[in-house]
Amino acid sequence: MSEPRAIGLDLGGTDLKAALVDAGGGMNGFRRCPARARESEAAPLEAIAETVIALAREAGGGVVALGLGTPGRVDPATGGVVGNTPHLPHWESPPLRDWLAARVAWPVVVDNDANLAALAEHRLGAASGARVSMTVTVGTGVGCGVVSEGRLLRGAGGGAGELGHLPLDGRVPCRCGVPGCVEPECSGAGLAARAREAGLAAEDAAAAFALAAQGDATAAALVERMTDRLGALIAAGVQLVNPDVVVLGGGVSAAGEALLLPVRAAVMRYALPSHRRDLRVELAVFGERAGVVGAGLAAWDVARGAG
Amino acid sequence: MSEPRAIGLDLGGTDLKAALVDAGGGMNGFRRCPARARESEAAPLEAIAETVIALAREAGGGVVALGLGTPGRVDPATGGVVGNTPHLPHWESPPLRDWLAARVAWPVVVDNDANLAALAEHRLGAASGARVSMTVTVGTGVGCGVVSEGRLLRGAGGGAGELGHLPLDGRVPCRCGVPGCVEPECSGAGLAARAREAGLAAEDAAAAFALAAQGDATAAALVERMTDRLGALIAAGVQLVNPDVVVLGGGVSAAGEALLLPVRAAVMRYALPSHRRDLRVELAVFGERAGVVGAGLAAWDVARGAG
Repeated sequence: MSEPRAIGLDLGGTDLKAALVDAGGGMNGFRRCPARARESEAAPLEAIAETVIALAREAGGGVVALGLGTPGRVDPATGGVVGNTPHLPHWESPPLRDWLAARVAWPVVVDNDANLAALAEHRLGAASGARVSMTVTVGTGVGCGVVSEGRLLRGAGGGAGELGHLPLDGRVPCRCGVPGCVEPECSGAGLAARAREAGLAAEDAAAAFALAAQGDATAAALVERMTDRLGALIAAGVQLVNPDVVVLGGGVSAAGEALLLPVRAAVMRYALPSHRRDLRVELAVFGERAGVVGAGLAAWDVARGAG
Repeated sequence: MSEPRAIGLDLGGTDLKAALVDAGGGMNGFRRCPARARESEAAPLEAIAETVIALAREAGGGVVALGLGTPGRVDPATGGVVGNTPHLPHWESPPLRDWLAARVAWPVVVDNDANLAALAEHRLGAASGARVSMTVTVGTGVGCGVVSEGRLLRGAGGGAGELGHLPLDGRVPCRCGVPGCVEPECSGAGLAARAREAGLAAEDAAAAFALAAQGDATAAALVERMTDRLGALIAAGVQLVNPDVVVLGGGVSAAGEALLLPVRAAVMRYALPSHRRDLRVELAVFGERAGVVGAGLAAWDVARGAG
């Protein structure tokens, strides 16, 4: 008999990441392949199918369920993506859960990738032990997943957690259309774009952080504006949701304390005294593997009938 | 045999309201008496005790449970108020649930008043049928209760829903201490104070709305600023929580369409297109009785073992 394990998949705009996840959240056989999202409508599905077949073989018959994280809004009722997402340009409302369920014998669960990362950090990561956690992912955009008393907050249409697009005095127009949306100044992609507009050679957010650390005043001012606005965004969420732990994740969190310390200070500046008293702000512990772990945990929930 | 009923109590800074609430949310014996919150520490407890005795007599032995709504942050674990609230100046962290439970034979539940109003609107009022609702109470302050898939969002320390104190470009300092907090410009008390500062004879928010309706340009500009900021606050909540219904309640909602129409327009201006598409913004239907109905419904939940 093989040990029972779930398959966790995390489909991004660039990579498909996957692993076998045991009941306690332990990972085996982590792998990564191109998501092929920009090739065609069929290409990412082929990537998923090949990965699932390989992992099922590795599991040796012990698979209990399959979980998939995807960008975009996932309808809680159907497990399909609602509308289209810039990361999956060939897809219009793909019915992901139905597509998977028609091809595998195990129970299937599909959820938003930031939600699943939040689930992993809440149960086993930086927010483990929290009653209510808010995991904020800073990367191309600024996403957020809230877990309250063990349950993910999904929203009526699967759209909960759009923390980036709050009208908090943004000075650069965002394609989302919200007046004053602040995401173009506080996402990773936004920071890099603002740095390039200012004449800096910043390919990505990490480069902008590096320039600031080297004493470049322009880069330092942009990083200060970014972390101040991130703190204000997060504090808005703190006022509304009252978490005991905020987790900073996403690609930009690789900057470590250069991101954490100013954002933590800004959160404490903008949060209500009653809400910041018992609040911790921490870096994510699962990093880029949080989505895979969360997808595996969600699959286990479904296998146990608790999803 | 008497019909089984819950006792619902809503303790405010001015009045204590109460009624018997049947399993379907129907009210009998609604009454109101002074809350006596400013007299002494004992006075509001005496008002509660007298009201409970009178309602229990009226119920004729059929009481199943007691629910109490109170201003302030209620600890979900203890049912006590955390810290002090300006509406109950003689109280420091009153252990309300323990105090009540020591005096009555029925199960007791205590929750924040805005949360209980939100529960009533979600289950039986303007948000009935919603998957996720946000009830925003505009009065002395701006409060908010979120019900997601049947459950109130309480936060780690009972502080969820502090929608008023978001750093959304506020230009008048708030005693909460959050930089840019916008509550002084968008609460009812704030609107009246701004109007008086501008030289208008506005005793309360209703008077400011009346002046604006009569064509007073100063009052109209203040109402426009208030409703714009309320819309931005609510949209921040919409981005984060993705409700399908937003309910406008609290004392200022007595202004009716003069509040609803500009706030609805502002919410639609600041909400993400994906989040406003299926969103309704409506006036509360229970008005000042929402807290009593919600307290009764929460009591029924506890009586049924679901609280």
